[in-house]
Amino acid sequence: MKHSLSVLVENKPGVLTRITGLFARRSFNIDSLAVGETHNPLFSRITITVDGQDQPIEQVTKQLHKLINVLKITDLDVEERLERELLLVKVKANADNRVEIMQIAEVFEAKIVDISPETAVIEATGPRTKVNALLELLGSMHVVIELVRTGKVAIRRGPRPT
Amino acid sequence: MKHSLSVLVENKPGVLTRITGLFARRSFNIDSLAVGETHNPLFSRITITVDGQDQPIEQVTKQLHKLINVLKITDLDVEERLERELLLVKVKANADNRVEIMQIAEVFEAKIVDISPETAVIEATGPRTKVNALLELLGSMHVVIELVRTGKVAIRRGPRPT
Repeated sequence: MKHSLSVLVENKPGVLTRITGLFARRSFNIDSLAVGETHNPLFSRITITVDGQDQPIEQVTKQLHKLINVLKITDLDVEERLERELLLVKVKANADNRVEIMQIAEVFEAKIVDISPETAVIEATGPRTKVNALLELLGSMHVVIELVRTGKVAIRRGPRPT
Repeated sequence: MKHSLSVLVENKPGVLTRITGLFARRSFNIDSLAVGETHNPLFSRITITVDGQDQPIEQVTKQLHKLINVLKITDLDVEERLERELLLVKVKANADNRVEIMQIAEVFEAKIVDISPETAVIEATGPRTKVNALLELLGSMHVVIELVRTGKVAIRRGPRPT
């Protein structure tokens, strides 16, 4: 069972370590984690996805609330959210398969951001499931050279008229 | 002075804590950090941007190499790299300024991924400087409600013929 949390924290040295340490002590393995600035330079937002296994995430959430540098915790699994992740993947792409690679990129609304005689770099964004689907397809073609992905971030949708 | 490192690590609980702890102990503040799976589920890649101030990043790199779960460290400031970051930003957008918001998104090759009567959510990807430029513009218009960004990730360009 995967859980995703969004944690608003003070932007100070050591805060991230205290948070990841809390997960490590309870043997939650962090699948993905993204830390970035917010609009206010005093605060950062951490989006974290962990593999819960048998342990309840509520225990960790309670502990997180006790950390003095933590301002707000949002459970991303509960509310309706827009979820996105970014992937850069370098693939083997030569004269034989370049067109196929470009067509796949188009289907996934991804961009080719670099081309060399033997390689291409694809930039893809979307929900985690979409990024995984692209990677599975490329994996089945045995063309993946290297990849880097950002981990999931999420934001609430705007209010709808009732 | 900002530094960016890409660190390939074993995908095990506690590894991230050891790495962020190392930066914290030397008073490097982490500006952004992105952890995601690699093609091999045994490994994760951490992309980390720190504010170096007066301290040399080399000291931290040396210490990182000593951690047993660290497999490879790449200095992203040295090699020519494709750098990307993802931003989700919710802005005030009503009948008066919605067209303007859409035009700005288009200029920045960003997507509007949610619209409500009073808000819009923009998804933007690009080098850090481009994402910052969009945020500065939106900031000057006083329309930003909330935002989340992934932190920078980067990948080597493919080999060029010499």
